[in-house]
Amino acid sequence: MILALAGGIGGAKLLLGLARAIPVDEITIIGNTGDDIELLGLRICPDLDTITYTLTGKVNPETGWGVLADTFSCLDCLVKFGGPSWFKLGDQDLATHLWRTSLLRQGTSLTEVTQQIAGSLGLRCRLLPMTESYTPTFVSTNQGVLHLQEYLVREQARPRLYEIRHQNVEQCSPAPGVIEAIEQAETIVICPSNPFISIGPILSVPGIRSALLRSQGLVVAVTPIIKGRAVKGPAAKMLQDLGFPLTATSVARLYSDFIDVFVLDEQDANLRAEIEALGIRVLLTNTLMNTLADKERLAHLVLQAI
Amino acid sequence: MILALAGGIGGAKLLLGLARAIPVDEITIIGNTGDDIELLGLRICPDLDTITYTLTGKVNPETGWGVLADTFSCLDCLVKFGGPSWFKLGDQDLATHLWRTSLLRQGTSLTEVTQQIAGSLGLRCRLLPMTESYTPTFVSTNQGVLHLQEYLVREQARPRLYEIRHQNVEQCSPAPGVIEAIEQAETIVICPSNPFISIGPILSVPGIRSALLRSQGLVVAVTPIIKGRAVKGPAAKMLQDLGFPLTATSVARLYSDFIDVFVLDEQDANLRAEIEALGIRVLLTNTLMNTLADKERLAHLVLQAI
Repeated sequence: MILALAGGIGGAKLLLGLARAIPVDEITIIGNTGDDIELLGLRICPDLDTITYTLTGKVNPETGWGVLADTFSCLDCLVKFGGPSWFKLGDQDLATHLWRTSLLRQGTSLTEVTQQIAGSLGLRCRLLPMTESYTPTFVSTNQGVLHLQEYLVREQARPRLYEIRHQNVEQCSPAPGVIEAIEQAETIVICPSNPFISIGPILSVPGIRSALLRSQGLVVAVTPIIKGRAVKGPAAKMLQDLGFPLTATSVARLYSDFIDVFVLDEQDANLRAEIEALGIRVLLTNTLMNTLADKERLAHLVLQAI
Repeated sequence: MILALAGGIGGAKLLLGLARAIPVDEITIIGNTGDDIELLGLRICPDLDTITYTLTGKVNPETGWGVLADTFSCLDCLVKFGGPSWFKLGDQDLATHLWRTSLLRQGTSLTEVTQQIAGSLGLRCRLLPMTESYTPTFVSTNQGVLHLQEYLVREQARPRLYEIRHQNVEQCSPAPGVIEAIEQAETIVICPSNPFISIGPILSVPGIRSALLRSQGLVVAVTPIIKGRAVKGPAAKMLQDLGFPLTATSVARLYSDFIDVFVLDEQDANLRAEIEALGIRVLLTNTLMNTLADKERLAHLVLQAI
């Protein structure tokens, strides 16, 4: 059994490779819900949706999120009413949020709802939210405290970042099945997702990091940073704003207590020694995943780390 | 000042005529909310929306409800999740329900929300919900107790009807401004809407019927029944199922305590004497409103009843 911890776009790319490399029913995914937002009374889980849409071929390939060929008729009307225009709710995507919110209001758990939505869309691996609680990520910036989505989407990650907080997270519990999945996994893959806002929230759920530390399985992290730059998203800017050296080593260091292997990009070969000095085995490869073949090749390499 | 009590499609037709006959800012409408439904966590107010869409030229002219040229992408996805397919939620229409629900959840009153939505869409007369409480209409039928929309839309009004109940209505109050509007109106028009499920719920709000009885203005009702048939909708079937004679007189009788004038279709001239015997003045005319000119002509006639 393979367990993967994943955020949105970057994580979903490797998941797509894993799903081609091994039977999908052997894959469990713990998805980040720290980027969840409540908007217009709807509970929106961007990372869970990106994973589901990507693995079921429903994703918009141009953006990496949202639904392929979606329309925005509802949003256009909402904006006329005075609603927010910055969060791009497509008409098809909206169905996911409406259905989720409706089931949650009826008392169905987020785990159950996530499974039901994923199942309806044809996802055949197991997708678990990290927690069933609402633990939104807020960022302190030079423009004040913002919800993560306001920072990422509305402000295009431009404000200078001072601090990241996962609201409510100390009081929350891992979703049912999460700890067991960590305990039972032969290989645990930390996807090349943002360490602060994708993997960070998962690690901050009480019990998850310690379960990873106890894990008998091999824990392999794939770098989201190549040559000091993030493949996509604000990971590099966040490292910089938060005062970390702008290298893949900083990510390896954030995970050093619980990972066994770090998959480093071959362009960063010069960092190998300093990461090995953290007691971590290093695998060097091309970690860029442009094509489906790239994703599958990287997935195979991760699996061969065992 | 003109006050109109209205349900959905039939009522909106006459309202359209009124809005052409006199300055729109002299018109106040009390809209039925007895047909409201909570679906997928959304508060849907079909009659308020039909009035707003019709008067702002946004309505789908083929159905008389919903938005012109609307699409159904969200609904198609909801149905795949297992959601109900019988209530036709268009993508644009959905924005109205989402915005309303979101404002209500934030504590905005239904009166305020209705005004805001109507204003955004360009409605220039005053539209008041009959009450701010949720007082859904339920019908007892040979297929059990159904929400009015289940009966009307899902079951196409086919089940035999035994009884109509307006849930919660005894405990509710008229929305702010409703009683004042009745007290101040020079003419009060009871639109040609269904007497049981459109006008009936309005009349059952505590205080409204007695305010109509006290009213100094002229109260004019327009028949929704011509030659024993409803122009649209199940009014005739309801009269029959509930044991009323299948004529316009039955409607006049339901309103006889508070109306001064009944506008009867000229095809029903034979009913004139029995309606006059109820102490009601009768105006005979062609009450069918196929064209905009028909609507305006009928509106002028109603206004000339003074």
